[in-house]
Amino acid sequence: MSGNTFGTLFAVTNFGESHGPAIGCVIDGCPPGMALSEEDIQPDLDRRRPGTSRHVTQRQEEDRVEILSGVYEGQTTGTPICLLIRNTDQRSKDYSEIAQTFRPGHADYSYLQKYGVRDPRGGGRSSARLTAPMVAAGAVAKKWLAQKYGMLVRGCMTQIGEIVIPFESWDHVPNNPFFAPVADVSALESYMDSLRKAGDSCGARIRVTASGVPPGLGEPLYDKLDADIAWAMMGINAVKGVDIGAGFASVAQRGTTHGDSMTPQGFRSNNAGGVLGGISTGQDLDVSIAVKPTSSIISPRETINMQGQATEVVTKGRHDPCVGIRATPIAEAMLALVVMEHALRQRAQNADVNPPLAPIRSSFL
Amino acid sequence: MSGNTFGTLFAVTNFGESHGPAIGCVIDGCPPGMALSEEDIQPDLDRRRPGTSRHVTQRQEEDRVEILSGVYEGQTTGTPICLLIRNTDQRSKDYSEIAQTFRPGHADYSYLQKYGVRDPRGGGRSSARLTAPMVAAGAVAKKWLAQKYGMLVRGCMTQIGEIVIPFESWDHVPNNPFFAPVADVSALESYMDSLRKAGDSCGARIRVTASGVPPGLGEPLYDKLDADIAWAMMGINAVKGVDIGAGFASVAQRGTTHGDSMTPQGFRSNNAGGVLGGISTGQDLDVSIAVKPTSSIISPRETINMQGQATEVVTKGRHDPCVGIRATPIAEAMLALVVMEHALRQRAQNADVNPPLAPIRSSFL
Amino acid sequence: MSGNTFGTLFAVTNFGESHGPAIGCVIDGCPPGMALSEEDIQPDLDRRRPGTSRHVTQRQEEDRVEILSGVYEGQTTGTPICLLIRNTDQRSKDYSEIAQTFRPGHADYSYLQKYGVRDPRGGGRSSARLTAPMVAAGAVAKKWLAQKYGMLVRGCMTQIGEIVIPFESWDHVPNNPFFAPVADVSALESYMDSLRKAGDSCGARIRVTASGVPPGLGEPLYDKLDADIAWAMMGINAVKGVDIGAGFASVAQRGTTHGDSMTPQGFRSNNAGGVLGGISTGQDLDVSIAVKPTSSIISPRETINMQGQATEVVTKGRHDPCVGIRATPIAEAMLALVVMEHALRQRAQNADVNPPLAPIRSSFL
Amino acid sequence: MSGNTFGTLFAVTNFGESHGPAIGCVIDGCPPGMALSEEDIQPDLDRRRPGTSRHVTQRQEEDRVEILSGVYEGQTTGTPICLLIRNTDQRSKDYSEIAQTFRPGHADYSYLQKYGVRDPRGGGRSSARLTAPMVAAGAVAKKWLAQKYGMLVRGCMTQIGEIVIPFESWDHVPNNPFFAPVADVSALESYMDSLRKAGDSCGARIRVTASGVPPGLGEPLYDKLDADIAWAMMGINAVKGVDIGAGFASVAQRGTTHGDSMTPQGFRSNNAGGVLGGISTGQDLDVSIAVKPTSSIISPRETINMQGQATEVVTKGRHDPCVGIRATPIAEAMLALVVMEHALRQRAQNADVNPPLAPIRSSFL
Repeated sequence: MSGNTFGTLFAVTNFGESHGPAIGCVIDGCPPGMALSEEDIQPDLDRRRPGTSRHVTQRQEEDRVEILSGVYEGQTTGTPICLLIRNTDQRSKDYSEIAQTFRPGHADYSYLQKYGVRDPRGGGRSSARLTAPMVAAGAVAKKWLAQKYGMLVRGCMTQIGEIVIPFESWDHVPNNPFFAPVADVSALESYMDSLRKAGDSCGARIRVTASGVPPGLGEPLYDKLDADIAWAMMGINAVKGVDIGAGFASVAQRGTTHGDSMTPQGFRSNNAGGVLGGISTGQDLDVSIAVKPTSSIISPRETINMQGQATEVVTKGRHDPCVGIRATPIAEAMLALVVMEHALRQRAQNADVNPPLAPIRSSFL
Repeated sequence: MSGNTFGTLFAVTNFGESHGPAIGCVIDGCPPGMALSEEDIQPDLDRRRPGTSRHVTQRQEEDRVEILSGVYEGQTTGTPICLLIRNTDQRSKDYSEIAQTFRPGHADYSYLQKYGVRDPRGGGRSSARLTAPMVAAGAVAKKWLAQKYGMLVRGCMTQIGEIVIPFESWDHVPNNPFFAPVADVSALESYMDSLRKAGDSCGARIRVTASGVPPGLGEPLYDKLDADIAWAMMGINAVKGVDIGAGFASVAQRGTTHGDSMTPQGFRSNNAGGVLGGISTGQDLDVSIAVKPTSSIISPRETINMQGQATEVVTKGRHDPCVGIRATPIAEAMLALVVMEHALRQRAQNADVNPPLAPIRSSFL
Repeated sequence: MSGNTFGTLFAVTNFGESHGPAIGCVIDGCPPGMALSEEDIQPDLDRRRPGTSRHVTQRQEEDRVEILSGVYEGQTTGTPICLLIRNTDQRSKDYSEIAQTFRPGHADYSYLQKYGVRDPRGGGRSSARLTAPMVAAGAVAKKWLAQKYGMLVRGCMTQIGEIVIPFESWDHVPNNPFFAPVADVSALESYMDSLRKAGDSCGARIRVTASGVPPGLGEPLYDKLDADIAWAMMGINAVKGVDIGAGFASVAQRGTTHGDSMTPQGFRSNNAGGVLGGISTGQDLDVSIAVKPTSSIISPRETINMQGQATEVVTKGRHDPCVGIRATPIAEAMLALVVMEHALRQRAQNADVNPPLAPIRSSFL
Repeated sequence: MSGNTFGTLFAVTNFGESHGPAIGCVIDGCPPGMALSEEDIQPDLDRRRPGTSRHVTQRQEEDRVEILSGVYEGQTTGTPICLLIRNTDQRSKDYSEIAQTFRPGHADYSYLQKYGVRDPRGGGRSSARLTAPMVAAGAVAKKWLAQKYGMLVRGCMTQIGEIVIPFESWDHVPNNPFFAPVADVSALESYMDSLRKAGDSCGARIRVTASGVPPGLGEPLYDKLDADIAWAMMGINAVKGVDIGAGFASVAQRGTTHGDSMTPQGFRSNNAGGVLGGISTGQDLDVSIAVKPTSSIISPRETINMQGQATEVVTKGRHDPCVGIRATPIAEAMLALVVMEHALRQRAQNADVNPPLAPIRSSFL
């Protein structure tokens, strides 16, 4: 209700601030009997971790996760799993100036208007650091979905600033700091280097997909699978747009083109992005998001101060020049969490249903 | 949980099917003491109503709303408001063929996979007809928000198929069947006429805005105002993409451009779309959605039948060649419902907070 | 959130007022594929109906239920089921006096303090008439639970005023207007007759049980099965106390007595009332409730008026001299609804669990 | 949904097991701007703490609380407050035997049937140890309610086993290990000593009250204030019965007696226990609960083992011979949490309402 819990049947309650003693989450609703240890979670945290290349923030956080509850003898028990990550590399003094002004494009201003107080150290609760517990929870969901359905969630960067990145292969994604599906990222690197020198930042477009999704997930009217995906994605820091399947391109399509033809061998296209009428079809979920440029930049900006007077702000501290670079594992986690929630709902509602048809599938990325 | 209730503090539970005896909703959480009658609701229903021009479905529904509860002596009492709309013009026999096949791009297939049964008459529960109770509930929210904050929610069509529609004035919107903000819609009319002759359908882009929104609405992590807007918009039938503010255009923007400069007189731009860090800034909310082409078209399509065998389908019956045409009042209603929910949440959480700064505002459409 | 929805996975949203045009509910989450018609619901409504003996209110309501949605060709579709009951016998003029004063023991006063307005006609929303839609929804849950688990929900009166009613047999319950499990109710009848002559009212104790409950239903900490039962029962109009199993008698018990011994053939007692640690054991659920005396009585009472001044109130109109008499089918419905909700939750969370032991059962009423 | 979160607007998510590394909770929805430190919470934890007299379990836990988030410069920020309590004195080897059998009256059996696995160490998640985080959260709610409304929540023991304890004065409650409102507890001490020697356990009756409650809290139909209190109380480990106001005594009352007369100076009695129609009247909330005898006793009990065969069980380890003794601060916390939740709901729904009458109050304990 106060916006810190994700999901209902697989409910993840997130807590912490960028520069407090710790961040973490409580997962309530993980099915019992699944093997689980920190080793299942740490790899995704490491993919999201800051300080791993010159293109991201240089804050050094080990992001070591500790399981505090819900696991007994290496198995989930069906009770709440608390995951704790201690903060270790805060430099709160960097924020003394920012405490008196508002960064254009940042949550500083809206937080103060909402709560009357704000924690300015590292953006407090509005920091992208809070996506770490989401990624941790997403790793638990991914594991369950993989075991249960063979589901595979993957993401990659498809555009950075003005540079559109072609899809070559999933194999390249882990081999560069951009999660780019291309062998050669030198153009991206020099683009980022010049941006950093200019004291500016840029946006990115990220694509995430899930294959092996069972048909029938999602609700008919308001908790549609695509609506919940849009909610989860737009809720990621700095995201301003969400496409499902053809997305905004569908505006200029015709019905004869857009509707994915069905054959006994599978669908002939995936304009739907794996969702029809809010319910999964069994095709790959296919989602794209727009990540805006980072608002914390060292170029001076026109703004007001706490007294409402005109002033300028320059953001020092350690910031990502393109928050989109680290967004891929976050978007994957969110997609996994949405599917997990709906998988459990479908069991509650329709455990007795025998779908009359075997799923028809086909791949299009 | 099963996807038929919108909101928590202003909770709207929707019921009914396209060809059942009635559709409607129950609004739980409307503050007491507001004057309310059917006359407050009917105008928005009439804007959404089918059969009002040659460019939309010819089904004739009066969509007459009846208030069954929650109002005493013309005032809301704080108890549930049930709104009932009887269906009057069903032609269920049109659907006997469709009951045996799946329309590409339609919920036929996914519903059957989810529930094991489906009501094929008019798409049953997946019909866009179910947006009528949403519009009715939205009218109640609009009235409260207007009285309380002077809030104004407006929408218009900005693209239909390949035709981009320039913004001339809000004044034109009520004067044409497209909700287009232009004086001359002859190009749109001839476009739609040729499309109808071709037995095809097209998509549309709709923009909705809300002005007068108080700053501070929205939650910090998961029920962000923009996330909930994305959820509400993507949940509208046929929507495939959602932009907030600059939306997907922000990918190619720089931080120096994207972040809206602040001055004592107001913001200098609205790339944020009125939301920073998930919380309203007081600027206009600015949202765009992509509506896909209608899937029910008379051109023959390749598909499978209930036995999984290859076949063809042609959709007869009465359908909108562009569902986007009637989407504007629906999107307005959804935006109003999201803001209403968050306005009540903010009262619960932060009734004691004195925002330290008067809102700064400015208009950009 | 605003207190008119029962349950989450089997969510029942109730609407209406005693003297409005209609009352009813929307059931969201009923599994698809169950045969359902008005005939499944009407019998329980008839058991609760007013005007059926001289010992209850003489208001004549047919309480005819109409299914408006969610059923197609006689089967549930998994979409919301709206049940509508039109009010037919209102005599609102009886309430003109009461509109100016507060009945001691009645919700008149607290409603006004909460909402600032109240609907005085028949108690408005606080009327026991609103239990009719609960009974209707309970009938749907009962049917599903009976088909799925062979579950049987039953209730009876065990005390009226000072008269403790011994348990003779379930067979007698349908044969008298008190739901008393005794062959001869003449003592109860003369007790009620003298009470009515005295212009007074009395309380009652009701017992409800459910047999055939699967083990494993209920949550570990806060949505314990017994906690949710207590919530549901205390939420029935006029209920002031709830016992599970031994209930208040357990205060004076010893651990050696209270803990129900287990044998391969079954439990040796049922002090637990079918719930241990908040989770069903497979034994019969065994619940008792205390229903207070009706507050609407014709004897004059000391009270205050709308201006806060001292005055007297006499309640005319048609009222039950013992609201407990009609409480049995209501309590049954509430118990069924709680079990239904938890049965669905258990499927969501633990569909993969193979309980290591067959349930052990035994009967004790 | 999975039963580990209390409340919606003031939502407390509890995690941990008796013998895991830590227990704790996350409070989401605490209003911003309240001074808060560990010192506000520790006193109530100390009142609940084990090992403080010979009449309770000898487990030595310091129960030192750590605030991990949600507080900045000594003030709540409106974001989640994570409270962590490390477990320090586990003796898990005591439980190796119990892992193979089921204690009569204990959650061992029902947990296994629900989850298929169980953590036998100290009862795992079903341990009364998990009430510590509830008490901690309750302390936060108590502070806010005291500051906002001058609300005072108090509890005491009114019966232990067969011994009814008269009410002498609240002043005595902190001076004895039973929370008994009497000066001389020697009778209680010798009763407990003999019980302990007999290897048996007993029940208790606890009364909790809240004064200074504003009128108008609670919902009309399903989340009635008394229903939510019943839910919260029945959810406390070992509770089997709940009375509000006159409770079960109201069965034998007449309407002329039960309904609390109203005068301009206040109510003449409090049979209602401060709630009418599910909504607070402004009178003291008055609640009593029945706590059953501890199920973990050293007297041998007839039971079955994990293979379903007949056996005997004797519970070693460190257990409370009367869990009711430490229940008073827990019941206080639960009452505070329920009122807190409804206080926030009332602000959301009815912030604009001007109650037409000043509250009338009077005290009766």
